[in-house]
Amino acid sequence: MKHIGILGGGQLGRMLLQAAANYPAITYVMDPDPYCPSAHLCHNFIKGDITDENDVYQFGKNLDAVTIEIESVNTEALERLEKAGVKVFPSSASLHIINNKIRQKSFYRQFSIPTSDFVTTDTLSQLSEHKAFLPGVHKLASGGYDGRGVQIIDTHHDFEKGFDEPSVLEKKINVQQELSIIIARSMTGEIALYPAVEMVFDLFLNQLSHQISPAIIPEQILWKAEAIALSVIKNLNSPGIFAVELFVDRDGNVLVNETAPRVHNSGHHTIESCYSSQFDMLVRIMLGYPLGNSEHILPAAMINITGSEGELGKPIYNGLEKVLTMDNVFVHIYGKQQTRPGRKMGHVTIMSNERQELIHKVNQIKQLLSVTC
Amino acid sequence: MKHIGILGGGQLGRMLLQAAANYPAITYVMDPDPYCPSAHLCHNFIKGDITDENDVYQFGKNLDAVTIEIESVNTEALERLEKAGVKVFPSSASLHIINNKIRQKSFYRQFSIPTSDFVTTDTLSQLSEHKAFLPGVHKLASGGYDGRGVQIIDTHHDFEKGFDEPSVLEKKINVQQELSIIIARSMTGEIALYPAVEMVFDLFLNQLSHQISPAIIPEQILWKAEAIALSVIKNLNSPGIFAVELFVDRDGNVLVNETAPRVHNSGHHTIESCYSSQFDMLVRIMLGYPLGNSEHILPAAMINITGSEGELGKPIYNGLEKVLTMDNVFVHIYGKQQTRPGRKMGHVTIMSNERQELIHKVNQIKQLLSVTC
Repeated sequence: MKHIGILGGGQLGRMLLQAAANYPAITYVMDPDPYCPSAHLCHNFIKGDITDENDVYQFGKNLDAVTIEIESVNTEALERLEKAGVKVFPSSASLHIINNKIRQKSFYRQFSIPTSDFVTTDTLSQLSEHKAFLPGVHKLASGGYDGRGVQIIDTHHDFEKGFDEPSVLEKKINVQQELSIIIARSMTGEIALYPAVEMVFDLFLNQLSHQISPAIIPEQILWKAEAIALSVIKNLNSPGIFAVELFVDRDGNVLVNETAPRVHNSGHHTIESCYSSQFDMLVRIMLGYPLGNSEHILPAAMINITGSEGELGKPIYNGLEKVLTMDNVFVHIYGKQQTRPGRKMGHVTIMSNERQELIHKVNQIKQLLSVTC
Repeated sequence: MKHIGILGGGQLGRMLLQAAANYPAITYVMDPDPYCPSAHLCHNFIKGDITDENDVYQFGKNLDAVTIEIESVNTEALERLEKAGVKVFPSSASLHIINNKIRQKSFYRQFSIPTSDFVTTDTLSQLSEHKAFLPGVHKLASGGYDGRGVQIIDTHHDFEKGFDEPSVLEKKINVQQELSIIIARSMTGEIALYPAVEMVFDLFLNQLSHQISPAIIPEQILWKAEAIALSVIKNLNSPGIFAVELFVDRDGNVLVNETAPRVHNSGHHTIESCYSSQFDMLVRIMLGYPLGNSEHILPAAMINITGSEGELGKPIYNGLEKVLTMDNVFVHIYGKQQTRPGRKMGHVTIMSNERQELIHKVNQIKQLLSVTC
């Protein structure tokens, strides 16, 4: 049996372990928190720091394959593991590119992959040289996560909100639509694309409202999006699972926003709604098996269950029983010890051939479910 | 969070734990083998003997709910747990009936549930009094499992094959078809039936070849089968998941063969092919949530992966890679340390709207897959 490890023990690891239990594999997880969502679902839990070179190397050195659940893993250790013959998903080289927004944007530019125009800044004072470039979005090169490390710079009055560290200033896009395409790549270079997902934002709350897969978009937009996503993955030249997040602007241009080199929130619906989920697919890749079938069984919508504002403590899932009476609705609670405002505590997938039913149930569930303490 | 326990740590427990990871629950497993298929997928593994009253009581006394994975659990301990306020699935009273074939057959007779005619025997010499009753099947009242404790008694020449312990002698039936109906019953008495499954036997090997769900049978047979299965569950009067196994004879009569008071091999296809699987359903019942939707997403076939003859040792899954290249095929390997002839090592589910495709893939997979060592 192969020995496979996951760096990070959050909900992505948890769902990966649920899928791994279908295959002959011995599983390992490293995380600083022994009560993290993945800790009890693996054969071997190791308490450790995923940003520490020694911890990561010691964790992986006797394993057949390791993967990540979060980008902030120590890449030097991953490189050493690769040299020692351990299979690493994604490759340390691709993670090195993606981990830093300056390198990531430069990578897109190098391979003529459409992305918003950008300049780089090292200090806050450098930012003020780019008045003519505005409106823009200032993003920390490294350390940003889930909305942190991002500032909208509409006019020069916003300069003070920028970062005094290496960052990119991206041209603001008139976003018409946001898409995500999950792509799998095996060790032998075989590639499978999942159907494009439409991310629907709540403009009032400025956060993801829900996502729908497959996205209903004109064929030519879909072709562009798929070609761009494929180009990203071919040029990153790494096995693993990737989520390519894309903007469609008001002129029908498709631009890469960013790429995640791991299983991704925008692929959670694949657990029930695709023949091979993103988690099943990554386990297959890690074990050296053929890729699965990424096609839909049924169309689906997905909603994140996040911690309510002002609530910090042991979570209570209000409305869960009512949601569980709804047909064709799949609930995933991640088992986190604490809720925090906006923290991802679970998700709900809805399946139906009827788009109206998907939207209707999304709205019902958003009314019913909340996480307080 | 509720604390729920499983008595027995085999593949049924494993798949139950995969489903439980979608809900807020702390999980416990008791089994004598710390390397059993479920041990690494629960929060707390307790090494213990499920037939021992003290072990079972100690395991369950601080939990909110317990269930079983195998019938041979100590029922006295379950009864004590019920008195102590622990929810037990199935109830100790229903397990007491089912655990003993004499009591189980008498239960069917008591409630006028169609089943093959039978007489009871205490000793081998008593068996010979029933020459006029033959051909029959002699079954040990307790201790039989997976084909053990069952003897075909076609003529009085076969009497010596019978059992010298309390047993039932059942009238042999001209079996046309075997069906299984999985039924869920919540703590509040809510009931959900899964579509009837057809068990297809390999007459040459005298073992299950595959099963198909939904069974294609005349509507009137289905109605009878569903009515009988419902009557079994209503009269057992216990919450939990049950599999009612039925014979259809050559005259179109439907008869109960036996009932299993737990998740069952004949329900494995529900993991992918029904909105709420038998495992999801049992977790919902244990946590006091509403029942899920037992309807099919797509029709399915299921094949057990069993250990090849003459092979005993560390398992090798021959042909697994080829099976994994097939579309719409779902592999579940149970992670058992040892293969033995006929031992259930995993299963494969196939989904398709086309019955021909199901059968075709069943045959392909049976040719491709084997477990040796």
